Amino acid sequence: MDPMAIVERQAQRTDSRILWLVLDGLGDLPRPGDGLTPLSAAATPNLDRLAQEGCCGRFDPVGPGITPGSGPGHLGLFGYDPGKYEIGRGVLSAVGIDFPLRPGDVAARFNFCTVDGEGRISDRRAGRLPTPENQRLVAVLRTIPAPPGVEVFVETESEHRGVLVLRGEGLGHRVSDTDPQRVGAQPLAPTALDRESERTAAIVAEFVAQAGRLLAAEARANMLLLRGFDTLPVIPSLAQRLRLRPVCVATYPMYRGLARLVGMAMPPAPQHLGDLPVAIKTVWAEHDFFFVHVKYTDKAGEDGDFERKRQVIEEVDALLPALLAPGFEVVVVTADHSTPWSFKAHSWHPVPALLWAPGRVFVDGVQAFSEMGCLAGGLGRQPLRFLLAEALAAAGKLAKFGA
Amino acid sequence: MDPMAIVERQAQRTDSRILWLVLDGLGDLPRPGDGLTPLSAAATPNLDRLAQEGCCGRFDPVGPGITPGSGPGHLGLFGYDPGKYEIGRGVLSAVGIDFPLRPGDVAARFNFCTVDGEGRISDRRAGRLPTPENQRLVAVLRTIPAPPGVEVFVETESEHRGVLVLRGEGLGHRVSDTDPQRVGAQPLAPTALDRESERTAAIVAEFVAQAGRLLAAEARANMLLLRGFDTLPVIPSLAQRLRLRPVCVATYPMYRGLARLVGMAMPPAPQHLGDLPVAIKTVWAEHDFFFVHVKYTDKAGEDGDFERKRQVIEEVDALLPALLAPGFEVVVVTADHSTPWSFKAHSWHPVPALLWAPGRVFVDGVQAFSEMGCLAGGLGRQPLRFLLAEALAAAGKLAKFGA
Repeated sequence: MDPMAIVERQAQRTDSRILWLVLDGLGDLPRPGDGLTPLSAAATPNLDRLAQEGCCGRFDPVGPGITPGSGPGHLGLFGYDPGKYEIGRGVLSAVGIDFPLRPGDVAARFNFCTVDGEGRISDRRAGRLPTPENQRLVAVLRTIPAPPGVEVFVETESEHRGVLVLRGEGLGHRVSDTDPQRVGAQPLAPTALDRESERTAAIVAEFVAQAGRLLAAEARANMLLLRGFDTLPVIPSLAQRLRLRPVCVATYPMYRGLARLVGMAMPPAPQHLGDLPVAIKTVWAEHDFFFVHVKYTDKAGEDGDFERKRQVIEEVDALLPALLAPGFEVVVVTADHSTPWSFKAHSWHPVPALLWAPGRVFVDGVQAFSEMGCLAGGLGRQPLRFLLAEALAAAGKLAKFGA
Repeated sequence: MDPMAIVERQAQRTDSRILWLVLDGLGDLPRPGDGLTPLSAAATPNLDRLAQEGCCGRFDPVGPGITPGSGPGHLGLFGYDPGKYEIGRGVLSAVGIDFPLRPGDVAARFNFCTVDGEGRISDRRAGRLPTPENQRLVAVLRTIPAPPGVEVFVETESEHRGVLVLRGEGLGHRVSDTDPQRVGAQPLAPTALDRESERTAAIVAEFVAQAGRLLAAEARANMLLLRGFDTLPVIPSLAQRLRLRPVCVATYPMYRGLARLVGMAMPPAPQHLGDLPVAIKTVWAEHDFFFVHVKYTDKAGEDGDFERKRQVIEEVDALLPALLAPGFEVVVVTADHSTPWSFKAHSWHPVPALLWAPGRVFVDGVQAFSEMGCLAGGLGRQPLRFLLAEALAAAGKLAKFGA
């Protein structure tokens, strides 16, 4: 039996509060030469104190060897089995621009692309169209009349990327990609993969045909490629599963969207790292689980910038006293996945984590919060979704199982 | 696939013998200041020698964050998935007084309680009735005539606690609690939760009504509250699953009962710690798995008594040479759950374990048997039920899997 099923049964509401501080892409690999990672190289007196007083470990976001996208990474982080719930590309893109997707909406990611005189794709990204160009063309596409009973939303993501959303009764989402994902091929016809999606496929085909006519005179962005048709997954909320009253304190739309998928409350987004403490205090009274998300560690990793990643970590460390000031009973610091600076990309390596809860956890003797320190930690190496179980127990939010 | 399913397939009978020494509630947390636990503070030359020659690790009785009752803790200890088999309160209480429960018997735990003139509960425990009072009233309740074809057993547990058992054909066990678990409420009517339990609910309702009349004149214990109706779970025995010939050497009825649930042989209970070596020798010839249970570590933890817990551990250590004298091939020392002295209660923290089997295990360099020592152990951190797989392998009781 899945231990999380037992955790769900035993979950109980208490007044204790959990800070769930996520440094996106925090995990990294030791640098040749000095063996340092951005985390171990950073001066982090506050994180180190939490590690010394708490319990550390390493967690696999999805499973050994599996590199997670942001969707599966955050599902693991929120205690869900990332293999059980799929979040399609279209939904992730819609969520990522904070589009208020409703159950049953069908969302697809699109690219503006370039096709030649014979309709063959010559550039899948239309020369990485500047975002203002994207916005101008999206306004053109919005003039395409919607079919009866259907609302059509065309949204800019950035550069060549956009989102198409269809809203209406009885629209299936099982439609094949029109993006063949290679240059020289023609865009594919959208095909219904089940009977419920036949009308959707027809609407998409007509939309693409009209878009082709409207964009025909454009030098670069003269066609659309669609992929990742999907609808909002039905995910039981953290309140339903674990009786939590969770709130999201995140700046980036993507992570706000992922938090919304699991039912977190969504106060206005803080604009800067320094705004996080005030954002927490504002929602303190009504919540017991505070998801705080810092994006810049991942960005630095994606850019291959060891030094900037180290600096971001130090900035977060300096912010910690203010973050902790309201008085959490339990603090977790971890990541949704590793983004080693040498990879410039997400990776499959387990993420470091610390769990702080005075008198409630096994103080394991780890002296510094780092990948290497966590290797000797009392939490061991576990699937990431179990970290929430450890934190709930430390917060007194799990009743005894069985007589 | 669950690895234990493969273990079951590969299990083979051999002459090698396993000592399965359980110090109830052994696991603890480091004490602020010196960082010691009762186990690490105890002088345990014999346990330390076993750890030095063996392999150590930490094990989660049920799963991360989950605090087990004695039932789930022992299921994990005996290699079962504790989420798969539920042992209801009534069955555990029956088992705990060594009542010879049969398959199909319906058992419920009851409290003597006090109700006021309007039938509202004023004390759920009838002032923690002395046990002799309980025995006197149980004798009164035994005069209630049994319905046709049904045997009714009323048994004292201790203080205000007792057990009701119904035996007969076609008695379902899905009956709701009559204990509302709060003062000021009236006892609830027992309700059948499925059709098979309708007769049971009617019998219970009549029994409670008659008990109310018989107890009406009592000053304190003038009513009964019932909860945890259940029947013996169908659990495949250790002989069936793993071809073991297990025997239980335990003093306390509860643990004897749990061992009986998985099919262990049950020689007369030794009365004292010092009787354990002789008890083992007496049953040496017929068995290959010796479950030896020591209760007092848990008791000291529940009482919040660091020093007494340490002393009990030292007493067990001193007894080890005599326990080991018959010559086991494999020795395991572990616990069913942690009972940190600072919690005065069971907790979710993993339990320390050592596995000793000369020439058969990875000698991991752990020098002392302690929670911190086990953190660096070769067995790592695993679900508790896998500890049996490790021990069976060390005992040569698992054949190679696959060609």
